[in-house]
Amino acid sequence: MTSTKYDVLGIGNAIFDVLVQADDTFLATHEMSKGGMALIDEARALAIYQAMGPATEMSGGSAANTIVGLAGFGARAAYIGKVKNDKIGEFYTHDIRAAGVAFDTVPAASGPATGCSYILVTPDGERTMNTYLGAAQDLTPADIDADAVAASAIVYLEGYLWDPASAKEAFVKASTIAHGAGRQVALTLSDAFCVGRYRSEFLELMRSGTVDLIFANEAELTSLYETDYDAALTALRHDVKLGVVTRSEKGCVVASKDNVVAVPAFPIDRLVDTTGAGDLFAAGFLFGLVRSADHTACGKLGALAAAEIIQHIGARPQASLKDLAKQHGLPV
Amino acid sequence: MTSTKYDVLGIGNAIFDVLVQADDTFLATHEMSKGGMALIDEARALAIYQAMGPATEMSGGSAANTIVGLAGFGARAAYIGKVKNDKIGEFYTHDIRAAGVAFDTVPAASGPATGCSYILVTPDGERTMNTYLGAAQDLTPADIDADAVAASAIVYLEGYLWDPASAKEAFVKASTIAHGAGRQVALTLSDAFCVGRYRSEFLELMRSGTVDLIFANEAELTSLYETDYDAALTALRHDVKLGVVTRSEKGCVVASKDNVVAVPAFPIDRLVDTTGAGDLFAAGFLFGLVRSADHTACGKLGALAAAEIIQHIGARPQASLKDLAKQHGLPV
Repeated sequence: MTSTKYDVLGIGNAIFDVLVQADDTFLATHEMSKGGMALIDEARALAIYQAMGPATEMSGGSAANTIVGLAGFGARAAYIGKVKNDKIGEFYTHDIRAAGVAFDTVPAASGPATGCSYILVTPDGERTMNTYLGAAQDLTPADIDADAVAASAIVYLEGYLWDPASAKEAFVKASTIAHGAGRQVALTLSDAFCVGRYRSEFLELMRSGTVDLIFANEAELTSLYETDYDAALTALRHDVKLGVVTRSEKGCVVASKDNVVAVPAFPIDRLVDTTGAGDLFAAGFLFGLVRSADHTACGKLGALAAAEIIQHIGARPQASLKDLAKQHGLPV
Repeated sequence: MTSTKYDVLGIGNAIFDVLVQADDTFLATHEMSKGGMALIDEARALAIYQAMGPATEMSGGSAANTIVGLAGFGARAAYIGKVKNDKIGEFYTHDIRAAGVAFDTVPAASGPATGCSYILVTPDGERTMNTYLGAAQDLTPADIDADAVAASAIVYLEGYLWDPASAKEAFVKASTIAHGAGRQVALTLSDAFCVGRYRSEFLELMRSGTVDLIFANEAELTSLYETDYDAALTALRHDVKLGVVTRSEKGCVVASKDNVVAVPAFPIDRLVDTTGAGDLFAAGFLFGLVRSADHTACGKLGALAAAEIIQHIGARPQASLKDLAKQHGLPV
């Protein structure tokens, strides 16, 4: 195996986040499933936006958040995702590069605008996302930089990529290249509703070895196997080399065929906004893996990054994850 | 005098804020005057932006922040400012309307993009602004809605309006209409460097009675009169009906010809970002005025709003100012 240029390369829907505080009544009035991610068209985006309060905007996207987190730990990180060459696309490109991530996907010159997610944050800190994919749905296999993928120790894919039709092919292309170069492929299931849309395809990706490592929260795991948590965890251990299940304040479970390790959550002062919690957990865990830490340390790194992100608005870290890890005696 | 439709109507440069954390070395490297607002062209905007870290974006603009704050207290508020009909202009329009502000200025269909300010926030909480005026510089007298101005108890203008040439005329037109309708006109001096650019014109506005009420911080006041604080305060009392001087952690001083009242600052837990401190102070003070509160209560309302804004990133309130005022037994 040749040496790597990147520790982790992420591929995902490049989405600009529009964050707003809202109450449960707003969610109910607009028939939103709390905690989930719904795909919306432009008409619904406009209707939601007009009803929303004043917003704060920042770059987002699930895998992109993870990759920015990895860069924040000090990992060599790269990202592939599609924006348009509009102002929002410029913000997006700036932010991810300024975070230290290699990002060279050619922006779309025509077609829909850079994708946006309208994220309603309720007083309990839960986030409910309404995503207009926009230019993100035009990610194609041609956007997959084969050299970059082959030179990355881990390729990290988000389940949301299964929504845009051509991105599926890009996903499979990336996995094939990665495995051809002897690399690992990780997938986050993204969202219980996303799992509902693509259950059989995700299981096939796991059972065929297209992915080696799965990140899921409890809701996604039980949605995947349509059974209770314990039975689903057993099934997961059978279907994939390594499964990492996040359980909110109960911490996480790292499960392989011959071992299951539980790691507690990291204590926090105040829950503000869970946007990005799963993404940043994955960042910490993957950072541990590329530093060859044991599964417990990987889980602790994930918990640490998740704790940072949920104590402020938005899914991009505000503190140095590298410094936080050092302060808590974790691998850096 | 006819009844009013709005308590306060603000006129200012409509600017989208791009906030980023930076250290003093960054400011020094890019030759920025800490705490100030510099006007920049597109080339410099690009150079600064490329060197900056990842950003958070939100609607801003000095007078607009004040007007949003007034709406947050429960006042009837309106705003006049120029954006372009681009995506950022859409964000801007959404946010100010969603805050409860009447905003009907026709966006520019051509010409420069919606204005942006690149705001560097240093670890001490100080903010240093680099502003590309963009479409804001195309505010003209035709944008001044005479009916709205005449129907507002107070018209609030920002000194920054003196930068775009045609906005000066809009400013004077608004003042003339307001006074013709028996209303009050307030001006914030905005920035010590802005005062340096327009010292004689600002003094003329005050001495000619074009403005009735001045908001200034200590640096702006001493820059205006090119003398020490005490001498400047004496001069201010002579030149304007009411002068309100903010002094950071020392609170504020409210000065009229026959009286001077000092009001302490509001205690805070942690200074995060001073962006918008003066704007929100003005919001609270003006809210007190339109509720016919005495000067001490006006100053307390200003201090309360300033304290809210400096404890988080960005110049738009995250808490209900009305609720905060109630909690502290202030007029609402």
